[in-house]
Amino acid sequence: MLTFFHYNWVVREQWYQWCEEITNDELLRERTGGVGSILQTLFHIIDVEWSWIRMLEGKPDTPENFEDYKNLDKIRQLDEKYRTDIEGFVEAWDDSMEKRPFYDPQPDGSVAMDAWGEVMRHVIAHQIHHMGQLSVWAREIGKKPVSPNVIGKGLIHPETVDEDQ
Amino acid sequence: MLTFFHYNWVVREQWYQWCEEITNDELLRERTGGVGSILQTLFHIIDVEWSWIRMLEGKPDTPENFEDYKNLDKIRQLDEKYRTDIEGFVEAWDDSMEKRPFYDPQPDGSVAMDAWGEVMRHVIAHQIHHMGQLSVWAREIGKKPVSPNVIGKGLIHPETVDEDQ
Repeated sequence: MLTFFHYNWVVREQWYQWCEEITNDELLRERTGGVGSILQTLFHIIDVEWSWIRMLEGKPDTPENFEDYKNLDKIRQLDEKYRTDIEGFVEAWDDSMEKRPFYDPQPDGSVAMDAWGEVMRHVIAHQIHHMGQLSVWAREIGKKPVSPNVIGKGLIHPETVDEDQ
Repeated sequence: MLTFFHYNWVVREQWYQWCEEITNDELLRERTGGVGSILQTLFHIIDVEWSWIRMLEGKPDTPENFEDYKNLDKIRQLDEKYRTDIEGFVEAWDDSMEKRPFYDPQPDGSVAMDAWGEVMRHVIAHQIHHMGQLSVWAREIGKKPVSPNVIGKGLIHPETVDEDQ
């Protein structure tokens, strides 16, 4: 689980660096699909990750409004503010938590029940999905998108036979 | 690991069903970003999943050409043809394989070393990323995309306290 979160944080940082080369107007421009703009996508990824982890922790969510985060610096600051708490939770993850139930009140008054393992994978896939949208928008403005490759980022150190012995 | 593969297969099937409502011309239309068209994206996802798993298995890859798979039925048949083999590998996955080295010859003559756990996550993220691209293209043609939600698909059955006792 941790490997995928590390992957997402590495790729997110690479998108921040990519954004440094783009004007703020372009980052805020309304686009087709997803949540509508590049910066709002980054905000949304941070916001959703934070909200779900807080809910699993049983801690109060602290909703933020995108109106207050409409430039790259503020987005990065928000991400940094949340990261330590999220990292602590993710690093303490163990497989015994996979099937723990999370009770999720629905807008219609019913209560859905998700497994914690589903919620964690939901958070992981959520970012990757939205980064795919960013990659299309990047091409639309004539820029090469950040690579989504998992391999080649040094996320897991392979054990060669010599090390095993 | 298996949960994420199941997720991808469920979402892929939902995209196939989504495609049934779209003309083949629209599915083949060249688009900005990714690998260029909706059908070619689906082909690419199947192809990449198959190639990586075959390489991990130490079995020969069997390259296919998109020119031979330019409609939904043929794409589905290709997916079905590969699925049993891939499922067998994924279901036999255990954590002891995470750090096993995979030697990956590069175009420049060097050999990269990836961990098997990285390769598996690469395959998982690869599809999710490309589905994100499909979601933008879906909106461009005025259609609601398939939901990328992990929760709500019954992928993990939560254990309530009563069951634990």
